[in-house]
Amino acid sequence: MNLAIDAMGGDGGSAVVVQAIKNVHSTHPDIRFTVFGNQDELKDLTSFCTIVHTTQVMSMEEGPLAVRRKSDSSMIKAIEAVKQGQCDGIVSCGSTAALLAASLLILRTFENLERPALTITFPTLKHTLCDMLDVGCNAENSSEQLMQFALMGHAYAKAVHNLEHPKIALLNIGSEAKKGDSVHKDAYEKIKALEHINFVGNIEGRDLLNGDVDVIITDGFSGNIALKTIEGTISAYSSLIKGVFKSSFIANLCALILKTKLVEMKRYFDYRKYGGAILAGINRPVVKAHGSSDVEAFTNAILLLSRLVEIDVVDRMKELL
Amino acid sequence: MNLAIDAMGGDGGSAVVVQAIKNVHSTHPDIRFTVFGNQDELKDLTSFCTIVHTTQVMSMEEGPLAVRRKSDSSMIKAIEAVKQGQCDGIVSCGSTAALLAASLLILRTFENLERPALTITFPTLKHTLCDMLDVGCNAENSSEQLMQFALMGHAYAKAVHNLEHPKIALLNIGSEAKKGDSVHKDAYEKIKALEHINFVGNIEGRDLLNGDVDVIITDGFSGNIALKTIEGTISAYSSLIKGVFKSSFIANLCALILKTKLVEMKRYFDYRKYGGAILAGINRPVVKAHGSSDVEAFTNAILLLSRLVEIDVVDRMKELL
Repeated sequence: MNLAIDAMGGDGGSAVVVQAIKNVHSTHPDIRFTVFGNQDELKDLTSFCTIVHTTQVMSMEEGPLAVRRKSDSSMIKAIEAVKQGQCDGIVSCGSTAALLAASLLILRTFENLERPALTITFPTLKHTLCDMLDVGCNAENSSEQLMQFALMGHAYAKAVHNLEHPKIALLNIGSEAKKGDSVHKDAYEKIKALEHINFVGNIEGRDLLNGDVDVIITDGFSGNIALKTIEGTISAYSSLIKGVFKSSFIANLCALILKTKLVEMKRYFDYRKYGGAILAGINRPVVKAHGSSDVEAFTNAILLLSRLVEIDVVDRMKELL
Repeated sequence: MNLAIDAMGGDGGSAVVVQAIKNVHSTHPDIRFTVFGNQDELKDLTSFCTIVHTTQVMSMEEGPLAVRRKSDSSMIKAIEAVKQGQCDGIVSCGSTAALLAASLLILRTFENLERPALTITFPTLKHTLCDMLDVGCNAENSSEQLMQFALMGHAYAKAVHNLEHPKIALLNIGSEAKKGDSVHKDAYEKIKALEHINFVGNIEGRDLLNGDVDVIITDGFSGNIALKTIEGTISAYSSLIKGVFKSSFIANLCALILKTKLVEMKRYFDYRKYGGAILAGINRPVVKAHGSSDVEAFTNAILLLSRLVEIDVVDRMKELL
């Protein structure tokens, strides 16, 4: 297995990526790496990685048009290496919009697939993992596309989480079949009609974290809003809790006493544990690490990519479409 | 001022409503009430309220079709009393779908308004209040409708929260003007072009609770998902915090020490403080109290309605449309 690593473009710079690659190398010496970026910053990796020097960086702010303009960026060169079969998949923490555009242009989607879907995995209150797609590839989706997401989500949860019959739900504004706009009403019927898919119906925003389902299907607009609303609410709630623990000397003492448990709780919803998001529907595994990834997050993103390559997730998703 | 109170249909039954009316009467003896419901359950109110006996209950589960079928329900009779001018506005904790359908049918929307919008008010991290509309009247909205929501939201925040230039934002999947589907791109331009409206651009899900804006404009689909996602995330996070405080004897002790502050924090996001949601765009003030309202919540719902009547919120919203 040879993984293409885009070393540039994240908030933490290449230093984070270099350390993450070292971490993975120490526990998985069998994995080979081709690392794309400024060679001066990647010297520490020369002993065990193939380094490809690139002169441009696809920064977080870049849109899809940068794909042409920044053809010598680490991101584009890494994707091209995957296209040419030198590497088996790519991880990048650069701009999502550029990564999506370049993946579409260079690697392309599955033959019968209309649109790819950004897929994230998050922990639930039942200590299970839940996949949600799409959370950001698309500004709008048709019911046909939502049906295709259900097929991809099913295959993904089966392959990655070893679930035989993953429970699939559709994010909607009510639990009844007739709820939602025409796209979601249609999608409900189309997903329901799929054979071998364990469709459990609609799920509402308030139940996303409950762990009642394994895969949540959503259009990119609602999915993006739901995901960011979860993030924002956790952040708001955390800051209120912090306020409570800072409210007096004795409250501070309580914080110290509870520290281990509080850190454990904070870790529970910590995206860094889960590595990154997948561009599902692209012909090769593409992992989008968080722009603000630290070493732990990027390490997990690489491990996620290695697992996706290992279990051949792309072919397993393709089979269903 | 004479307020129409639908005493039936909430989870807590008429007892909650009766006590709430008594509470408001004790502090606001000038407000008159016409209470609709089973007269046997409303005996305690006969000394200072007009009681209208009704035989049917519009339960929480009822859809819009129940409006015809349950013409002798407390909800329908209350709305009819508002229509006939006997009462100035109505509060109900029955089915939202039925309340909306009956309000549309009997009270109707403002002349130039395409669709009404369910408007809620929530507290932000900056200790301000933020209004969000629509969170549930509509399964989909046009850009024209979103523009009308912006006008209503502006007038509402100005009238109810005494803000001279409320900051209005559009819920979208990115902060840039060109983000989102065609409806939201169009809505951005239409709202931006409105005179006298302090439009500050798009807002993302992660910033809803930050307090950077005063009014959030959203289509009913995304708004419903965002609102319920906030509720669900707070509930999930609370249950994790509870777990921390129950994890040991000493953790339990910490909970006792911090109790006042924790209750204060919990209260911060407590819907009961804010009374209920408004059906903005209906020709008379209509307040939808939460189905699971307790006495405090219903008391605040009545106080909200009385304030809406007092400041003539309907006319102030109408002026702009």
